[in-house]
Amino acid sequence: MAGTDRSRSPTLGGPSVILVRPQLGENIGAAARAMFNFGLTDLRIVEPRDGWPNDTALAMASRADHVLAQAQVYRKTEHAIADLNRVFAATARRRGMLKPVVTPRQAAAEMRVQLAGEQKVGVMFGPERAGLDNAEVVLADAVLAVPANPGYSSLNLAQAVLLVGYEWFQAADPAPDPAPPAGDNRPATKREMVQLFEHLEAELDAGGYFQNIAAKRPSMVRNIRNIFQRAELLEQDVRTLRGVIRALADRRARDQDPAAG
Amino acid sequence: MAGTDRSRSPTLGGPSVILVRPQLGENIGAAARAMFNFGLTDLRIVEPRDGWPNDTALAMASRADHVLAQAQVYRKTEHAIADLNRVFAATARRRGMLKPVVTPRQAAAEMRVQLAGEQKVGVMFGPERAGLDNAEVVLADAVLAVPANPGYSSLNLAQAVLLVGYEWFQAADPAPDPAPPAGDNRPATKREMVQLFEHLEAELDAGGYFQNIAAKRPSMVRNIRNIFQRAELLEQDVRTLRGVIRALADRRARDQDPAAG
Repeated sequence: MAGTDRSRSPTLGGPSVILVRPQLGENIGAAARAMFNFGLTDLRIVEPRDGWPNDTALAMASRADHVLAQAQVYRKTEHAIADLNRVFAATARRRGMLKPVVTPRQAAAEMRVQLAGEQKVGVMFGPERAGLDNAEVVLADAVLAVPANPGYSSLNLAQAVLLVGYEWFQAADPAPDPAPPAGDNRPATKREMVQLFEHLEAELDAGGYFQNIAAKRPSMVRNIRNIFQRAELLEQDVRTLRGVIRALADRRARDQDPAAG
Repeated sequence: MAGTDRSRSPTLGGPSVILVRPQLGENIGAAARAMFNFGLTDLRIVEPRDGWPNDTALAMASRADHVLAQAQVYRKTEHAIADLNRVFAATARRRGMLKPVVTPRQAAAEMRVQLAGEQKVGVMFGPERAGLDNAEVVLADAVLAVPANPGYSSLNLAQAVLLVGYEWFQAADPAPDPAPPAGDNRPATKREMVQLFEHLEAELDAGGYFQNIAAKRPSMVRNIRNIFQRAELLEQDVRTLRGVIRALADRRARDQDPAAG
């Protein structure tokens, strides 16, 4: 099923572009144009401020309007990236998050390799002013930052998309794929990662891990997610870890039942 | 005279950007921003349609307004490039003019060499719709063309300037720093890793994880260790994970005590 789902990018393929909470329709339209300039067609939009469809976006997109017409709209970032194996988070600032930071060029080279290996990849872009939330950056495998004048580095949304598309287009297809990571195994999708995170966090809540430190919960959750994100887990690894969590926690639950009941 | 005139790019240097007969003030302003994003400051404008200065351009330039303030305006393209040693003509179409055609990346590499050799270089951009006249392209040493989707290759003016600036900036330092991943933290020692593994495995044994599959225990342990090994844990991560294991397992142990005792 997942294996045959590659038809989602029907024409030229390439990475998915995920616009998270974009504000201005004209920026969405300009982003669609920038995508199509470089052959990208899989646009995903999370919570567009002004709803969807958006006439301003359509007018701005001009001949790239088909990119908008087939765009998919989501209510949560997790859902928009659920089927992707590898995701980059475009950010202007470094987040001090212990994630690799790559340039658009490095990201393009990586994405060529990953797509050649049948993985699905994408780049997330945050809203015009605020950028991505930390909780969203955590879901990414790497941060994508454009090298620019340190005194004046902010790019608008469509320009950031343009540079990613430009580098994607320029990157040559890779030489024969450098050893797919495992036998018949594949990198975990973001859906599988989020399910793992939520399983672990639910058990930690049940185990009282965050007790008395509720205020710190978000940053602690972020740290823990980052640890597992960095491990570039395969689907099999996720299953192993969920078994580990169950083994550690389930008996606790079982043992508690009589006491609780 | 021309030889002592190198102070014209007062701050960061780099190639001159020549906008020939630009129409919309907002495109001039956006071009100035794109220039300054990548440290370019020498803007030259030939026959701006709406005169000069242009309030719309200024408003759009925002913090790059000083690029506009020091821009020089000319009545003829020849005059705008008179002091330059080497000029590229940005065009969307090939002109069949027997000139070398280079990408922005190739142009950037050439310009780095030329500027290092005390030559003055620049890139001409034509008006929004029509592009440069053939008579202007003739004055250039090479044509600069952005590799793009052949079915949809037209970029707006500021985007074309952006790509030239981006490549110029990237051509500077050959090795963009691969961002050391840590703050003041340090990678875990192998002792800490082994202690983590042994802690986890002891709890898994206590939780019955390996029950009935004792023969597989060594390979399963190996898989689990590999997962955490791949995450390149910092010392702080190891402490976090041990806290996680305790939270998942300790209550189990506590809850079991009465039953066992």
